[in-house]
Amino acid sequence: MLLHLSTWSEIEAFLERSKTVVVPIGSNEQHGPTGLLGTDWLCPEIIAHHAQKSGDILVAPTFNIGMAQHHLGFPGTISLRPSTFIAAIGDWVRSLGAHGFEKIYFLNGHGGNVATIEAAFSELYAAASFEKRKSRVVLKLKNWWDLAGVNALAMRQFPVGHGSHATPSEIAITQWAYPEHIKAANYAPQIAPTGPIREAADFRARFPDGRMGSDPGLATPEKGGELVELAAKGLIADVAAFAAETRPG
Amino acid sequence: MLLHLSTWSEIEAFLERSKTVVVPIGSNEQHGPTGLLGTDWLCPEIIAHHAQKSGDILVAPTFNIGMAQHHLGFPGTISLRPSTFIAAIGDWVRSLGAHGFEKIYFLNGHGGNVATIEAAFSELYAAASFEKRKSRVVLKLKNWWDLAGVNALAMRQFPVGHGSHATPSEIAITQWAYPEHIKAANYAPQIAPTGPIREAADFRARFPDGRMGSDPGLATPEKGGELVELAAKGLIADVAAFAAETRPG
Amino acid sequence: MLLHLSTWSEIEAFLERSKTVVVPIGSNEQHGPTGLLGTDWLCPEIIAHHAQKSGDILVAPTFNIGMAQHHLGFPGTISLRPSTFIAAIGDWVRSLGAHGFEKIYFLNGHGGNVATIEAAFSELYAAASFEKRKSRVVLKLKNWWDLAGVNALAMRQFPVGHGSHATPSEIAITQWAYPEHIKAANYAPQIAPTGPIREAADFRARFPDGRMGSDPGLATPEKGGELVELAAKGLIADVAAFAAETRPG
Amino acid sequence: MLLHLSTWSEIEAFLERSKTVVVPIGSNEQHGPTGLLGTDWLCPEIIAHHAQKSGDILVAPTFNIGMAQHHLGFPGTISLRPSTFIAAIGDWVRSLGAHGFEKIYFLNGHGGNVATIEAAFSELYAAASFEKRKSRVVLKLKNWWDLAGVNALAMRQFPVGHGSHATPSEIAITQWAYPEHIKAANYAPQIAPTGPIREAADFRARFPDGRMGSDPGLATPEKGGELVELAAKGLIADVAAFAAETRPG
Amino acid sequence: MLLHLSTWSEIEAFLERSKTVVVPIGSNEQHGPTGLLGTDWLCPEIIAHHAQKSGDILVAPTFNIGMAQHHLGFPGTISLRPSTFIAAIGDWVRSLGAHGFEKIYFLNGHGGNVATIEAAFSELYAAASFEKRKSRVVLKLKNWWDLAGVNALAMRQFPVGHGSHATPSEIAITQWAYPEHIKAANYAPQIAPTGPIREAADFRARFPDGRMGSDPGLATPEKGGELVELAAKGLIADVAAFAAETRPG
Amino acid sequence: MLLHLSTWSEIEAFLERSKTVVVPIGSNEQHGPTGLLGTDWLCPEIIAHHAQKSGDILVAPTFNIGMAQHHLGFPGTISLRPSTFIAAIGDWVRSLGAHGFEKIYFLNGHGGNVATIEAAFSELYAAASFEKRKSRVVLKLKNWWDLAGVNALAMRQFPVGHGSHATPSEIAITQWAYPEHIKAANYAPQIAPTGPIREAADFRARFPDGRMGSDPGLATPEKGGELVELAAKGLIADVAAFAAETRPG
Repeated sequence: MLLHLSTWSEIEAFLERSKTVVVPIGSNEQHGPTGLLGTDWLCPEIIAHHAQKSGDILVAPTFNIGMAQHHLGFPGTISLRPSTFIAAIGDWVRSLGAHGFEKIYFLNGHGGNVATIEAAFSELYAAASFEKRKSRVVLKLKNWWDLAGVNALAMRQFPVGHGSHATPSEIAITQWAYPEHIKAANYAPQIAPTGPIREAADFRARFPDGRMGSDPGLATPEKGGELVELAAKGLIADVAAFAAETRPG
Repeated sequence: MLLHLSTWSEIEAFLERSKTVVVPIGSNEQHGPTGLLGTDWLCPEIIAHHAQKSGDILVAPTFNIGMAQHHLGFPGTISLRPSTFIAAIGDWVRSLGAHGFEKIYFLNGHGGNVATIEAAFSELYAAASFEKRKSRVVLKLKNWWDLAGVNALAMRQFPVGHGSHATPSEIAITQWAYPEHIKAANYAPQIAPTGPIREAADFRARFPDGRMGSDPGLATPEKGGELVELAAKGLIADVAAFAAETRPG
Repeated sequence: MLLHLSTWSEIEAFLERSKTVVVPIGSNEQHGPTGLLGTDWLCPEIIAHHAQKSGDILVAPTFNIGMAQHHLGFPGTISLRPSTFIAAIGDWVRSLGAHGFEKIYFLNGHGGNVATIEAAFSELYAAASFEKRKSRVVLKLKNWWDLAGVNALAMRQFPVGHGSHATPSEIAITQWAYPEHIKAANYAPQIAPTGPIREAADFRARFPDGRMGSDPGLATPEKGGELVELAAKGLIADVAAFAAETRPG
Repeated sequence: MLLHLSTWSEIEAFLERSKTVVVPIGSNEQHGPTGLLGTDWLCPEIIAHHAQKSGDILVAPTFNIGMAQHHLGFPGTISLRPSTFIAAIGDWVRSLGAHGFEKIYFLNGHGGNVATIEAAFSELYAAASFEKRKSRVVLKLKNWWDLAGVNALAMRQFPVGHGSHATPSEIAITQWAYPEHIKAANYAPQIAPTGPIREAADFRARFPDGRMGSDPGLATPEKGGELVELAAKGLIADVAAFAAETRPG
Repeated sequence: MLLHLSTWSEIEAFLERSKTVVVPIGSNEQHGPTGLLGTDWLCPEIIAHHAQKSGDILVAPTFNIGMAQHHLGFPGTISLRPSTFIAAIGDWVRSLGAHGFEKIYFLNGHGGNVATIEAAFSELYAAASFEKRKSRVVLKLKNWWDLAGVNALAMRQFPVGHGSHATPSEIAITQWAYPEHIKAANYAPQIAPTGPIREAADFRARFPDGRMGSDPGLATPEKGGELVELAAKGLIADVAAFAAETRPG
Repeated sequence: MLLHLSTWSEIEAFLERSKTVVVPIGSNEQHGPTGLLGTDWLCPEIIAHHAQKSGDILVAPTFNIGMAQHHLGFPGTISLRPSTFIAAIGDWVRSLGAHGFEKIYFLNGHGGNVATIEAAFSELYAAASFEKRKSRVVLKLKNWWDLAGVNALAMRQFPVGHGSHATPSEIAITQWAYPEHIKAANYAPQIAPTGPIREAADFRARFPDGRMGSDPGLATPEKGGELVELAAKGLIADVAAFAAETRPG
């Protein structure tokens, strides 16, 4: 069930049977010579939208801009500062919590988001902790590649050249979903270098075409489809487990 | 051209021929018994995506959560506080400005966003004004219904019962784009009441089913298609005029 | 009744008979070759102070600095950033609300304030909306020229050359109240140009003497007096209507 | 010279001969049974406006709301939080600094403002210090009672019962300026108690009628006039000395 | 009792007998040619740690970075902006308040902290005052040199050349506690100049070696020991008095 | 070399030979029945202070309060909100960067700090990235247990019952450094449970004595000494490698 294509009374009815909502969250940032700028928000959106076709989960609109300051050296990247990101996640959570959602599950598509999303969770929990009260909501962050079996599948599909940015697995997922937007390029070197992540100027100097450790040329729509299928199943199961969790005390 | 389905080098190439980018911006909020929660961000997205098929404009990802605090009494609404909204718009603009975009055009789908978006523009301009320097970017806000001829068409289509929230014109646009998600309901009264907008509890007490002054039952996908067609044409022309503007001094 | 010339126990007594307070709010900014820098806060102050002589309304101190970033290219302008303005309005409202005022009426003298004041209202309401509770206070914004009949009178007085900044109507009001500070200048052109409002450098380049579309040379103290008289009557009536409003739910 | 009754070109001309501006700053807060709520902003305004009649100083609009959280237990008090106060002072200073003012002199009327104004100065200076550059402006804070000879005069006028809040000296100044608003009351006890300042509830419990250590019944308009006369002279001299200061390095 | 060397259950037990905690607070900043950079946080730490050996007081970890923007021209200085300092003090107080501490006593070692700490107290109290409720905690700030008899002793020890920064009294205290880190230098002039405090560049130009009005060469470990002994006694007594205070109302 | 026991001119001299500084950073939070509240800031402080005895590294004062909101259910815990933590790290970095430090190495003692510290780094880098300039400083975060060989040693020392909070390895380090503060308790169960980390109330319900997965009874001062020795060596090597890094581009 897609929240944005529902009416408020449909959501009211959903809340009768579940207090859990899934928020796809990602980033809009360069993904090398052939990766789509939207890759990191498209992947969790693709997976979550696919999952809700077979599972009774509610999927919120996609949080499509995240923490991508290091990619700002490449045109098309849009980034929030961590402080803005924390404030925005807070408002999303407060909004959903006001409606009675008690479990908010963020399906993440960007490694660079993880630290700030966790900080945002702590910021929200801290308000309750300072007042010695329970939090209104429970928050969970899951990267799509950490869903059951997904990373293992990607490693089997791409034993060499997977890397950590503009990976063939994420490129493959967008190829499967947007076949009319598959791009080609010569990669030089075939497998991109690795290194630390700092500010945008440093990043572009280290990673001239934007890739980190990856060979996106390995991606195919078929492999993408396999990943989506497995991730969607994993998501349904993981959301169910989260929804079933009881709170202590 | 859709930014999120492009690569960074395609955007780099676009910047050679234009420094203007269009950002669809809206809100995810209740739209009465039959309106989609996504209506206000879907409408500018639908129009902008349609426009870029025939015009050489670049469309950024949709800014899908806006200022909708007054709708929080209805499940599914997600709102930023104005202070968060201002910070987030600031980061979008700083990101796009860093790439060399000089004209940023926000195509808005939610009347409740207008004040805060204008405040955000002033916040950005103020940084330049305090330092007595030119702003790096020029910002423009346009509601889709204010594009050339669009509001007049809507008034002709819906001479009675257009109202101001969950209007038949916006419902019609989403019906045209998402025909499989057309909803039906009995409206009582047929035309919703009007009144002031305050906090969410007050809003729900005044407008029990979420509509303001409107009869969404008048919407049809065909009327939506007419509106999209006209608005897309208007958008291409308006963006061209904005891009052609010279700056004084 | 002027709050700042009252004692706390006089305010306590006033609260027994009314929960409504009027806050004149404006801006301190350039007003062309002959307009006073204080024009935009002086006008609502003049009107509200005049009104309280004949009506039992309580007038707070004047909020004299608003959002005037675009005028910072002209000496003497003082501006808050929107984020600061929102925070300050919040503290005023929280202060007055703590005393039991339930209706706070901002009589505004500066068009450039409107967006940010509305954003400030939304910021305040949002705190209640996220918590699903009623707001402690109801907020109203009214520009003095929108009081009953005032704008129509100004159009009759100045059918040509009224414009939108450094208008003869606002100049006339300050002339009536501060006759010893009437200034003269040659205007070239007689009626100033119009155009968009952006950062201060852009503004000064477009509007070299600070006026927008106006011919302040038309102002006279007599016309100012007529405007004040009418606006004061309108204010008393409008405040009474606001005070009498009941809240739904 | 009063900034708000001047035009921008008059300020431009003033800047040719001086880079110094005086900002009266105070608070709107309860002042005991007979003191005006505006006392703390009226006093520096009265003194500065009087001074500019005989000295060539430029007086900005009055910053009339300060840090008065402890007085919020009494109706009519309006307070900024320190964080808001710091932000607002910052914007005033940035505005004036943008015009070329290099020396900004705050004439303060409220002891409770001192800490936050100094913190605001440090916040402004810190921006320069982190960047190892000179500050654009030099800031000075002076309480009106610390002007040459003023406190000594007050001690001679009111050797007993001066106290620290709702003092006879400040009451006297407002009596001199607003003789039609002189209030009377029985004071019990004649001299109010003293004690620490904490939150508003604590304050009202300790100081039931709002006074701290004072007997405002001693105030007379004549004594107020003497204080204003002396303070105005002191202000002119102190501003001249400040304007003449050279900066090291 | 040192909080950081205790377990949580030991603190739980302490709370059974006392609701008061002492927080040493200072700054890490240059202290002239021979003063340790840590002087201003070491002094209150030394005194508080010494005091808790003989008195049953609980000493929190030292808040070691304060408001030292004016010293940033000298290497090794670390400063918070006032706005950050206020936020951090707020979080410390909210944390301690959550555990049931009702009296929080800040023993301060840096004059430059005073304004911002007081602003931080007001920020915390304001939250209660806006809501017309009692503050959960009572806050007290005391400079170590204002403890009973301490300043008088320092004046007797150093009748000439005490000054206000890098004073022989504070140097002496660190000499007593860290005898292996006593430094020597030629002072030129022997007694440093005095002057106003502004941004870092101004400060370094006025006070080339970092001292203000002082001759640190007068310090000896013995004198430091006398000061610590007296201050520790004063602290125990002052904390006891603070703990014994009852709240009105 | 300890910064706080040095003079500014000693730091100036150090900057001639190195631009790198080490900041021990941790948290003050409950550590189970026997762990010291200061454990997480004492460990990196102990290691860094030990390391600087044999290596020419500069150690800043310890950043002793971090992100510990989840431990606020236990007395003695002090936590910053992530937003405050980010602001404070920013000011530390800006201060050290102003002196010419180009490499800032945070030696961390608290897993719960990691996300927020990384968000703080991104916040700092983002300022440079938005402006398309190089960052003034390079930032590095290292947990002490991730120094070469340290975690492996801990696993050898405590093959069972190491856990993740109030671990025997961190307890052992504080035992080695503060032998007079070794505490004893019966642990029930001997090895604590594990589970997710949320707000403080949830945490205390899940982990009644504060431990997570650990048996601190295994700690001995000797094992602590071994860990410190190895970590100190690892720190010197790691700092040297960091200092030697060149920046690309």
